[in-house]
Amino acid sequence: MPHLHLEYSDNLKQLDVEKTLLRLNHTLVGSGQFAQELDIKARAQAFAQFRVGVAPVARAFACVRLALLSGRSSEVKQQLSSSLLEVLKEAVHDVSGLEVQLSVEVTDMDRDSYVKVLLPT
Amino acid sequence: MPHLHLEYSDNLKQLDVEKTLLRLNHTLVGSGQFAQELDIKARAQAFAQFRVGVAPVARAFACVRLALLSGRSSEVKQQLSSSLLEVLKEAVHDVSGLEVQLSVEVTDMDRDSYVKVLLPT
Amino acid sequence: MPHLHLEYSDNLKQLDVEKTLLRLNHTLVGSGQFAQELDIKARAQAFAQFRVGVAPVARAFACVRLALLSGRSSEVKQQLSSSLLEVLKEAVHDVSGLEVQLSVEVTDMDRDSYVKVLLPT
Repeated sequence: MPHLHLEYSDNLKQLDVEKTLLRLNHTLVGSGQFAQELDIKARAQAFAQFRVGVAPVARAFACVRLALLSGRSSEVKQQLSSSLLEVLKEAVHDVSGLEVQLSVEVTDMDRDSYVKVLLPT
Repeated sequence: MPHLHLEYSDNLKQLDVEKTLLRLNHTLVGSGQFAQELDIKARAQAFAQFRVGVAPVARAFACVRLALLSGRSSEVKQQLSSSLLEVLKEAVHDVSGLEVQLSVEVTDMDRDSYVKVLLPT
Repeated sequence: MPHLHLEYSDNLKQLDVEKTLLRLNHTLVGSGQFAQELDIKARAQAFAQFRVGVAPVARAFACVRLALLSGRSSEVKQQLSSSLLEVLKEAVHDVSGLEVQLSVEVTDMDRDSYVKVLLPT
């Protein structure tokens, strides 16, 4: 915890994924919500097969999903999603010829059944 | 909003993913539940590494997960999942030699913390 | 139902994914919680683009997400996640030079709107 997924359409050729993941993680660390920086597990996935809407328009997306152990307030979640969206906006700035949607979702993980182990123990 | 994921085992060689995504999106547009067609962000992912059950039988799957902002009724969700399943059934019809499972899940996204921006603004 | 996702960083070179998926499925079958073994749809995804935390340390992860139809007790979910974590621990044992995080999350799928069909019918 937390887990972060960055999903994006692979027509966002200028997206620097490595740099973006690091910035997203730094933003989470800077939020003060997480005890240890190593807890943040971020991964990115490019989609070659995608379709935004039905109109024949060149479109793209970059979406973050942040999964947290349940229990955080709505205010904290809003702050986190807003700050992560700012990172996306910096990362996807030059989109000439594309309609691009950026979004951030925060989701809860069931705290009672979540288990984790760190190796080596 | 909405986000749609189509996940399928890569032994479904005859699945026309591009066509299926467009049909899924058209079905969502036709539901009248969404203000703008461009809001629908659908993406597909083939899995080369999968295992259905434990028996040594040739099996496959195609699963849709539709993520909506929270607040829609159970009836609306049932209508959406049923209509999306019909699209899957049309898309995956010739499955000789394979046991195929098709499924649709509808999931809620927390409305309070979800943020989105459209570029160019 | 159930759906199982195994996500892992692709620096876990020694992970035998095929074997691990089968063991995860056998564990679910052995739990007695599922009517038919073929219901278990497990898939795995390697991430080449990932970032754990912000420190310049060699890190890795392997995370299972198990999605169940809503209604199972917290105790059942805890038993399932614990037993799946044991499988991960056996699968990812030799991690010299890497900090590895293994985790299991159990999530509910909305029972009312979930639909499934098995082909051929």
